[in-house]
Amino acid sequence: MKTFDRFDCISPVDYRYHDEKVARYLSENAFTRYKLRVELALVKTLHKRGICSEKVVREVEEACSKVTTAEVYAEEARIRHDIRALVNCIRAKVSDDAKPYVHMMATSYDIIDTANAARYRDVVWEVFIPSLVSLVEVLVVSVEHEAKTIQVGRTHGQHAVPITYGFAIAGYISRLGKSIESLMRLAEELPGKFSGAVGAYNASSLFFEDPVGFEKQVLDELDLPAAEHSTQVVPPEALTRLFCEITIAAGVLANLSDDMRNLQRTEIAEVGEEFEASQVGSSTMPQKRNPINFENAKSCWKILMPRIITVFMDQISEHQRDLTNSASARTYGETVDYAVVTAKRLTSTMKKLAVDHANLERNLEMQMGLVVAEPLYIILAALGHPDAHEKVRGLTLQAQREKIPLEEIVTNDPGMQDYLAKMTPYQRQILSDPALYTGVAAEKAQTVAKTWREKLRLK
Amino acid sequence: MKTFDRFDCISPVDYRYHDEKVARYLSENAFTRYKLRVELALVKTLHKRGICSEKVVREVEEACSKVTTAEVYAEEARIRHDIRALVNCIRAKVSDDAKPYVHMMATSYDIIDTANAARYRDVVWEVFIPSLVSLVEVLVVSVEHEAKTIQVGRTHGQHAVPITYGFAIAGYISRLGKSIESLMRLAEELPGKFSGAVGAYNASSLFFEDPVGFEKQVLDELDLPAAEHSTQVVPPEALTRLFCEITIAAGVLANLSDDMRNLQRTEIAEVGEEFEASQVGSSTMPQKRNPINFENAKSCWKILMPRIITVFMDQISEHQRDLTNSASARTYGETVDYAVVTAKRLTSTMKKLAVDHANLERNLEMQMGLVVAEPLYIILAALGHPDAHEKVRGLTLQAQREKIPLEEIVTNDPGMQDYLAKMTPYQRQILSDPALYTGVAAEKAQTVAKTWREKLRLK
Amino acid sequence: MKTFDRFDCISPVDYRYHDEKVARYLSENAFTRYKLRVELALVKTLHKRGICSEKVVREVEEACSKVTTAEVYAEEARIRHDIRALVNCIRAKVSDDAKPYVHMMATSYDIIDTANAARYRDVVWEVFIPSLVSLVEVLVVSVEHEAKTIQVGRTHGQHAVPITYGFAIAGYISRLGKSIESLMRLAEELPGKFSGAVGAYNASSLFFEDPVGFEKQVLDELDLPAAEHSTQVVPPEALTRLFCEITIAAGVLANLSDDMRNLQRTEIAEVGEEFEASQVGSSTMPQKRNPINFENAKSCWKILMPRIITVFMDQISEHQRDLTNSASARTYGETVDYAVVTAKRLTSTMKKLAVDHANLERNLEMQMGLVVAEPLYIILAALGHPDAHEKVRGLTLQAQREKIPLEEIVTNDPGMQDYLAKMTPYQRQILSDPALYTGVAAEKAQTVAKTWREKLRLK
Amino acid sequence: MKTFDRFDCISPVDYRYHDEKVARYLSENAFTRYKLRVELALVKTLHKRGICSEKVVREVEEACSKVTTAEVYAEEARIRHDIRALVNCIRAKVSDDAKPYVHMMATSYDIIDTANAARYRDVVWEVFIPSLVSLVEVLVVSVEHEAKTIQVGRTHGQHAVPITYGFAIAGYISRLGKSIESLMRLAEELPGKFSGAVGAYNASSLFFEDPVGFEKQVLDELDLPAAEHSTQVVPPEALTRLFCEITIAAGVLANLSDDMRNLQRTEIAEVGEEFEASQVGSSTMPQKRNPINFENAKSCWKILMPRIITVFMDQISEHQRDLTNSASARTYGETVDYAVVTAKRLTSTMKKLAVDHANLERNLEMQMGLVVAEPLYIILAALGHPDAHEKVRGLTLQAQREKIPLEEIVTNDPGMQDYLAKMTPYQRQILSDPALYTGVAAEKAQTVAKTWREKLRLK
Repeated sequence: MKTFDRFDCISPVDYRYHDEKVARYLSENAFTRYKLRVELALVKTLHKRGICSEKVVREVEEACSKVTTAEVYAEEARIRHDIRALVNCIRAKVSDDAKPYVHMMATSYDIIDTANAARYRDVVWEVFIPSLVSLVEVLVVSVEHEAKTIQVGRTHGQHAVPITYGFAIAGYISRLGKSIESLMRLAEELPGKFSGAVGAYNASSLFFEDPVGFEKQVLDELDLPAAEHSTQVVPPEALTRLFCEITIAAGVLANLSDDMRNLQRTEIAEVGEEFEASQVGSSTMPQKRNPINFENAKSCWKILMPRIITVFMDQISEHQRDLTNSASARTYGETVDYAVVTAKRLTSTMKKLAVDHANLERNLEMQMGLVVAEPLYIILAALGHPDAHEKVRGLTLQAQREKIPLEEIVTNDPGMQDYLAKMTPYQRQILSDPALYTGVAAEKAQTVAKTWREKLRLK
Repeated sequence: MKTFDRFDCISPVDYRYHDEKVARYLSENAFTRYKLRVELALVKTLHKRGICSEKVVREVEEACSKVTTAEVYAEEARIRHDIRALVNCIRAKVSDDAKPYVHMMATSYDIIDTANAARYRDVVWEVFIPSLVSLVEVLVVSVEHEAKTIQVGRTHGQHAVPITYGFAIAGYISRLGKSIESLMRLAEELPGKFSGAVGAYNASSLFFEDPVGFEKQVLDELDLPAAEHSTQVVPPEALTRLFCEITIAAGVLANLSDDMRNLQRTEIAEVGEEFEASQVGSSTMPQKRNPINFENAKSCWKILMPRIITVFMDQISEHQRDLTNSASARTYGETVDYAVVTAKRLTSTMKKLAVDHANLERNLEMQMGLVVAEPLYIILAALGHPDAHEKVRGLTLQAQREKIPLEEIVTNDPGMQDYLAKMTPYQRQILSDPALYTGVAAEKAQTVAKTWREKLRLK
Repeated sequence: MKTFDRFDCISPVDYRYHDEKVARYLSENAFTRYKLRVELALVKTLHKRGICSEKVVREVEEACSKVTTAEVYAEEARIRHDIRALVNCIRAKVSDDAKPYVHMMATSYDIIDTANAARYRDVVWEVFIPSLVSLVEVLVVSVEHEAKTIQVGRTHGQHAVPITYGFAIAGYISRLGKSIESLMRLAEELPGKFSGAVGAYNASSLFFEDPVGFEKQVLDELDLPAAEHSTQVVPPEALTRLFCEITIAAGVLANLSDDMRNLQRTEIAEVGEEFEASQVGSSTMPQKRNPINFENAKSCWKILMPRIITVFMDQISEHQRDLTNSASARTYGETVDYAVVTAKRLTSTMKKLAVDHANLERNLEMQMGLVVAEPLYIILAALGHPDAHEKVRGLTLQAQREKIPLEEIVTNDPGMQDYLAKMTPYQRQILSDPALYTGVAAEKAQTVAKTWREKLRLK
Repeated sequence: MKTFDRFDCISPVDYRYHDEKVARYLSENAFTRYKLRVELALVKTLHKRGICSEKVVREVEEACSKVTTAEVYAEEARIRHDIRALVNCIRAKVSDDAKPYVHMMATSYDIIDTANAARYRDVVWEVFIPSLVSLVEVLVVSVEHEAKTIQVGRTHGQHAVPITYGFAIAGYISRLGKSIESLMRLAEELPGKFSGAVGAYNASSLFFEDPVGFEKQVLDELDLPAAEHSTQVVPPEALTRLFCEITIAAGVLANLSDDMRNLQRTEIAEVGEEFEASQVGSSTMPQKRNPINFENAKSCWKILMPRIITVFMDQISEHQRDLTNSASARTYGETVDYAVVTAKRLTSTMKKLAVDHANLERNLEMQMGLVVAEPLYIILAALGHPDAHEKVRGLTLQAQREKIPLEEIVTNDPGMQDYLAKMTPYQRQILSDPALYTGVAAEKAQTVAKTWREKLRLK
């Protein structure tokens, strides 16, 4: 198998959304290297137990550094077994003395599942989490700038009561922060195994009194915990949990993207993706400024989210294992790639995002008269009005019908006078200037930003 | 809306797989009660803060105890708003003095999301986890009986090397045990909220210097943590994680069911669901003994697993919330019900499961001659045979071709003599009696059973 | 099992979104009636073949009319087999002479799968398709009113070039129309079976020379085609195709709902769900007018869409059948119910939908200056401008920078003079009044409406 | 972007399951060629309408033949718009006179969606359907050989009554045959579009009286129908239906694979994947003969099936389109590739599959005594036994308890004598030799094979 044209690829993960850092852990070449690393860990442990010489270790290490995926595939094409092919490639590069120690006592999945644990742990720790942390950092900076920028709150796509722009962004910091913490824990919990063909340490028991201890020693070389119980494979739940959390994190990214897409609508226009001077918005409509990055981020979620079903189906493996995950488990890396690509794209897009303060104000004023309805209702209720909600609903309908500001109607309503008299100055003030009615939005935004700046040790 | 015939239901969760204990938390009646509990917690806190009298608390408590779902639905039919309908029903049952304090400062989702957190936490802790623990207990007892019962290990549906029956079951104990621990943690982390219409405490800020402290006080009444940041709704990730774990636990149950279904195949017959004297196996084939309970358990997984997609889609809510989860979030309870029903069904089925020791032995002997191939290869390799795997593969093919036991072929092979001489007695013994080749299966089974008996405090 | 409180249900399909017409086909009571209908069809056919007397037919018919689901469940609780329980209930109500002919030669799934084919065909033809046709009718009327109402076209949420409101609605007519046609065909293709326990007509061959002909005769009683080949069950693909199409139709409904939700945003406000006088928009914000019906419609799609995965998983049944669809196949009716409820809700909502012509105009004018960019570029290109797209992009950026209408910039640009001179009057006119630039939107809208008014024979 | 190492790919679809024929239609290079073909169809039509000269057509044709994906990507990297980049690459290769006609009046998705329709239609017709037809052919040949080979029928994994091996295979022929017919129709229905930026023919109306006629003319060049109504994009349902059917076809392949995997279990062993002399079954267990091809086929289904969710989500596009399918729609080709690879793998595996007649017989005999229960019950019922099912259930339990063949018990049972006397010779014969009890399995198998041999015009 030789080099080929990247555009002959069928998957966009390879010709268009290929992240080189992810590929360092999850490409087929990377997988080969991880499997070799496990084979080497075994030989090192055999040496520590006095079973083979240091020379054997050195030979195997040297051999492993030279094995290429291409030669493994060539051997596999001959013998139709992937791990045996890998083993043959190592053996072909060592002396006859060293040969017996290569893959000694191991079954294929001692190597494969252990390599998988190591590479998924590494790519999550070294690529995915950092990509999320970078995004959080951009959001934290944004909150620090815009904590007090008033924005109308929206529920059901309708204007509700005011918040601040920074407050809305802080929600994403909090949600991503928790996901990062969860990812850290789950990635560290991924177990390896060295328990042989059916998990009962049948082979290693031929040589060791403490085959479970031997397993621990091999996995220690790779900083991996051992599964409490394994069959030919590690129990799939730890990896399933990790992919659930990756999917959850991607869901938060998709939610952020949808919010930004909508805030960029022509009629709303509170934010805008930065446009480069030479960038084309549409092939026929040169005036268009499309939120293509947010759209792309949402689209990547639509790719990766349903694939969790594949992971859940792979949880079921008959008896000491069937191999009906042979192809499917190979696709998990794509999910990681899409998640990383999305996080990176959002980081650069959010970093350059323009917040349009004029439009924020314009939109806020649109229904300000009506926004006052909530505090009015709540104050009336607190002041003992027996039917405050119904009363305010009536006043609101009147305001809309007569196109008069709600405050004016309230001030002139005879039934309101007693209540107006009893209000505190702050309460009275809010009826006149509902933009003040933002609760603790600004402080909350700042607190959340500060918390995660510290927790994630952002510069 | 009046009582109706259960068999007019469309969902099997209501006419066929309806668990009464689950319904105590997740039926619509139960939901009403949980929402009333949150409304009451609010009034209690208002009293603790000196805003209303104890009499108001007593009135509201009394009213809440009387509100029925039917009357709330009748009111909703009139005003088209579910929570306002609930509030009206409470208000109609208290004095005018108490009316203002009902739902004071609250937005609908302060009530709904907090009620959801409480009821999902409760049903997981009080129904789902106990149903899993009961199953684990049955499995532990089974392992304690069958830890040493030799069974052929199977990979790819093919005989591999031996394990013990208890060892296979222990794998399920370990997997379920970890899932139980995870469920415990995730259920406790479900947050409530009392931050108002857009999450910025706009309303409660009108009355309190510390609206975040007020929220904490309300949620303390319900033993719930507050979300670090909320909008109109709590951030969805905590509930999403819980449903991922429920799905994962159900996946383990499905895997167990598939294993048992297959072990019950006519040709294998190592286990059998107990049949009651009056039970009919087939409407035309009276001799049939079908694994209907395991089939049903697998089928329930096929129902609930894909529904995690609904949960993931509900993660996305625009701005301070859209309501596109209005119907969908109401279906989550079904997933819990199916998971509980599955766990209970498996508990009773596994409890009565017959293990057929004669068939276990018969199957084990089927290819015993060949099972010896693995230890032979491994020992040869360890003894320095330069090409052990290829050598043994050849001997195996010869055994199959000539229909001679592999051990006989090995003993007579000239090239094997040196190696046979170098083997330890234990190694030599295993070649003669491959049933001994079970590694540490029995000990591992016992250790796992003991660990979880203690961790889960089984009697 | 007795009548019970509807609000003890766990599934919202039973306490909140329960459509009575759907239940007439898909509730458990309805299922019982369909199964009885198949049992009766069998006895009728036995009579036609001279195997039993007409009196037997009358007895069985009478008995079938009396069997209740409740008594079948009671019998099933005793003998643990659902169809045998049904058979016992019929047999208990006929004379000893008639008993042998009840369920004669039939296997359970001859009854169940045939009943399923009949009821899904019926509910689709008699409830789901009519609910879609009603919606299409409302849309056709809307198009007939608003075919020429100009609306800004939107791509990426950004203003593009104009269409008409009727044109946008016509797209949904076309998409739903095609789905209706597809549903009709697929519902009619659902096959029944009467081929016995493993599909080879083993039992009926004991009595008939032409068991395939006998099967045809039984199914003719129910107007169902026979499967070309069946096992214990009919091949699942026909039902899978039907549910794919139901899911597709629901996707169109969800798309319509999203469009309407977005057009109802406060800033856009081109349409509005009608609000009843007594309706409450929010429990704390009395001014809110939320698009709750469109949100609900979208939410129902999030429920039903992922469940197609269950249907796809049920496609796989081992050998002549496993029973791992025992529970899952019972849930399909819920999907139909949600689809029907959604179609009905959208019909009533779209019927009362207010189209705000003033806001349509206001939004259209927002960027009218820029909308002219597309026709300008296209005309320039056609007139031979060597780099029309780049030229217009430059002019557009200038218009935005200098806040001058694009047309003014074009008129004054020296490089444009030659091209302006060469334009047709229509082309020149469009640059001044881009609202004219709607292509054939109005005619297309009218043509589509007319086509489907005729195809679906709307009044 | 240059050639790169195939093993740096992340998706197995590119490094391991890459079908070259599929790539000819669905790789990024292929997509470029299809888009160029659409651009050329446009210019050809402009010429036919007298708008440009034949020389322009020749220039554009020449240019299109030279544009490479790599240069398009380089241009896209500069201007950030994919189709404009393609257009620029064509324009750069033609004279200034020809430039204006390139992409004239077209919007990006006139090109992209039309290219998609053409390439998916082509790959289904020219690669996927042929791959299924080849598989059907292998199955037809198998049925022709094994139509009469008796096999025990299995339901619930339990022995039921006999069929023939050919009968079981014929079920797959029938199911695949219907899927092929459906694929043919759906692929031909895929529509293209040439209706401009929002579907209203805004641009083409500037030049033509009959823009709909012009669209038809362009699409005729590519043998594609036009959508009845389009927006910026074609309505997604036609493509969704095609992918539903691909998923359905793959489900049939997965079902076949599961059956074969199970029949290959050590204890059943009725079929066996052929093993090559040099093939390795396990890295440690040289004796293993694993059903890796069937496992792989099942695994590919687990990859592609859940991805239909992505397609369903892409059905929803806001207003005249959003671009949230920008990345996701690029992944559909992978589904086609996995389906093709699966069909091809199963073709070669089924072709070489060994059917073990000895084991078929051995398994059949296992419970033959009990298999007689069904015909006995049915005959007794037909002969007027008032409680045949219960009677036979009792006899069966007795047979199992006393380990005596059921026939012997029947013959000796006093209550049976009258009935035995009334049986036809054929009925009596079946009780003695239940292997005769195969109904019309053999004829049905032959009929199905013959039908599809003719319909699909197999050699």
